[in-house]
Amino acid sequence: MRLEGKPTRTIWLNADGWSISIIDQRKLPHLFEIAILRDLNDAARAIKDMAVRGAPLIGATAAYGLALGLRDDPSDAGLAEATARLLATRPTAVNLKWALDEVSDAVSHHVPHTRAEAAYAKAAAIVEADVDVSRSIGEHGVSFIRGVAEVNGGNPVNVLTHCNAGWLATIDWGTATAPIYMAHQQGIPVHVWVDETRPRNQGAALTAYELGHEGVSHTIVVDNAGGHLMQRGQVDMCIVGTDRTAANGDVANKIGTYLKALAAYDNDVPFYVALPHTTIDWTLARGADIPIEERSAREVTHVSGLTPDGKIADVQVSASGSGVANPAFDVTPARLITSLITDRGICAASCDGLLGVFPERAA
Amino acid sequence: MRLEGKPTRTIWLNADGWSISIIDQRKLPHLFEIAILRDLNDAARAIKDMAVRGAPLIGATAAYGLALGLRDDPSDAGLAEATARLLATRPTAVNLKWALDEVSDAVSHHVPHTRAEAAYAKAAAIVEADVDVSRSIGEHGVSFIRGVAEVNGGNPVNVLTHCNAGWLATIDWGTATAPIYMAHQQGIPVHVWVDETRPRNQGAALTAYELGHEGVSHTIVVDNAGGHLMQRGQVDMCIVGTDRTAANGDVANKIGTYLKALAAYDNDVPFYVALPHTTIDWTLARGADIPIEERSAREVTHVSGLTPDGKIADVQVSASGSGVANPAFDVTPARLITSLITDRGICAASCDGLLGVFPERAA
Repeated sequence: MRLEGKPTRTIWLNADGWSISIIDQRKLPHLFEIAILRDLNDAARAIKDMAVRGAPLIGATAAYGLALGLRDDPSDAGLAEATARLLATRPTAVNLKWALDEVSDAVSHHVPHTRAEAAYAKAAAIVEADVDVSRSIGEHGVSFIRGVAEVNGGNPVNVLTHCNAGWLATIDWGTATAPIYMAHQQGIPVHVWVDETRPRNQGAALTAYELGHEGVSHTIVVDNAGGHLMQRGQVDMCIVGTDRTAANGDVANKIGTYLKALAAYDNDVPFYVALPHTTIDWTLARGADIPIEERSAREVTHVSGLTPDGKIADVQVSASGSGVANPAFDVTPARLITSLITDRGICAASCDGLLGVFPERAA
Repeated sequence: MRLEGKPTRTIWLNADGWSISIIDQRKLPHLFEIAILRDLNDAARAIKDMAVRGAPLIGATAAYGLALGLRDDPSDAGLAEATARLLATRPTAVNLKWALDEVSDAVSHHVPHTRAEAAYAKAAAIVEADVDVSRSIGEHGVSFIRGVAEVNGGNPVNVLTHCNAGWLATIDWGTATAPIYMAHQQGIPVHVWVDETRPRNQGAALTAYELGHEGVSHTIVVDNAGGHLMQRGQVDMCIVGTDRTAANGDVANKIGTYLKALAAYDNDVPFYVALPHTTIDWTLARGADIPIEERSAREVTHVSGLTPDGKIADVQVSASGSGVANPAFDVTPARLITSLITDRGICAASCDGLLGVFPERAA
């Protein structure tokens, strides 16, 4: 997608053929800064300190991080140490381990002096595969937007989204945003209601930033507003992402997704969940079994933003001495989901629906 | 209710017998400052600049403001000018006009030199009547909390509330908080989930502050979290306030209330609305007809809080150049409301329910 009119990805190999560039996402939307990763340390720190975030992007950064590590030390010990080092950065991120395994498997049978080259090639393949997955989600999902556009007399199709399931969380296109970007590129008029997404404000900070640079019409609202917009007929559909999808079609996504799904159901607004097949946990029978991460109180009590003198700083919003709870995700039951938009195709949010698209998973 | 252990109201007549004290609520929860109103200008500014907020408190401040004005100029012209001046501060506040009419009616038949005294007496009566209304809501509503406490084996009763329908919005007790404070005073263990309440954060800033000073156990959560808490059985009931109640029991309250009502309904959690009879608009057949105030974009894009060096400042959270919508209220349909808690008693959220408690309104 574009930033300042220029096609950009979240991570890329520089022209020198070995160093890696990322966008330092901690400073978005206020400052756009590119960081150069020159060694294993740089890559590990970028993941750990959340300069990069979003499961696909974390995986890609780890893959290139391993290549950087092997460039300096291609021995078996170097491979093991670099893998362990990267794995420790965000221990719960599933894509991180997956990407490291992929690269390790691709290089371990090589003699040391060809390992780095093989790792770069594998990392590049992981990146391209992720772009393909996002593009496929877009190609399948755009049909829903086109369908509304065909019957609403040239008015923009109003899509509500929650959090940032955008290209900044992946390599390009995003997941929930992929159908939106594809519609926009195809000339379908589309307008996006962007949920602020407390407590980390990824909607107001990242999704709005993305959409603005791509030229997609959008409006930021607080998370509280979506129900009212749906009651008043101002939302044609919701499209959200998912962090983990159970085998029955329940999805765990950013906290607050469930509330929007309830409002959509109550107002006959279609509610779509866009997902790469990698988020499906086939071992999980239902969403209620998904453990919900509890994050730090400070994300709730303090808000980060731009000060009048152009610095990024935190201010304390809430009363001191109060207890705080900060569950990071909630589970939206399949019964509230109109369809799942996977990279393999569209299906019902149910066991049968998912198995229809992924028949190889049927017992 | 108590602040720093000391019984406190939001507005009071000072020992000098004429000047008025208020809490400057713009600085809460970070700084507790009392402001003294010594003339009409002080009172008008306190309302206009939102040092006081909440319909009952605005009304009380206007009533005392008129008394202060008449103290300086008790002529007919002075009365008319002071009334017009105060009315212009928050033109849409229904209680403001009501309180000014009450005081005007009480003083206009007096000769000028006794008007100020009569106005002070009427203002005091308005204040005491509001305290009685809140206390009655508490006495009726506490039965719901006691009912849960009697069957849950000594565990705290978990109440979720949204925004600040607390004593800071009234004179004492509050509306949604009155049953909670009464339960706490009666030794019923109660714990409150406090919705942050974006965009103005009145839950995190004011409700949490109130509850903390009264010694009521509470936990701040972002507005997105309530559905998840209800799914996991961590909420026994919701109690919220209302800004305007339609004759059929639909209520307009702070944006996001509707989403919590949907989640309560989906999880069989009772959803109660506490209201003084003054919020009922008998001329309004249904909530969908309530006009919804659109407030400034800056409330969404910027967040006010305490800086590390102890100042209160704004930071910009969202991407520059994005559109913003900021509807301030939403409508919760009566079908999602378990009961209304009025100062006259408890009733179903329906025409029949309301007329049962207010039979004088039956045609």
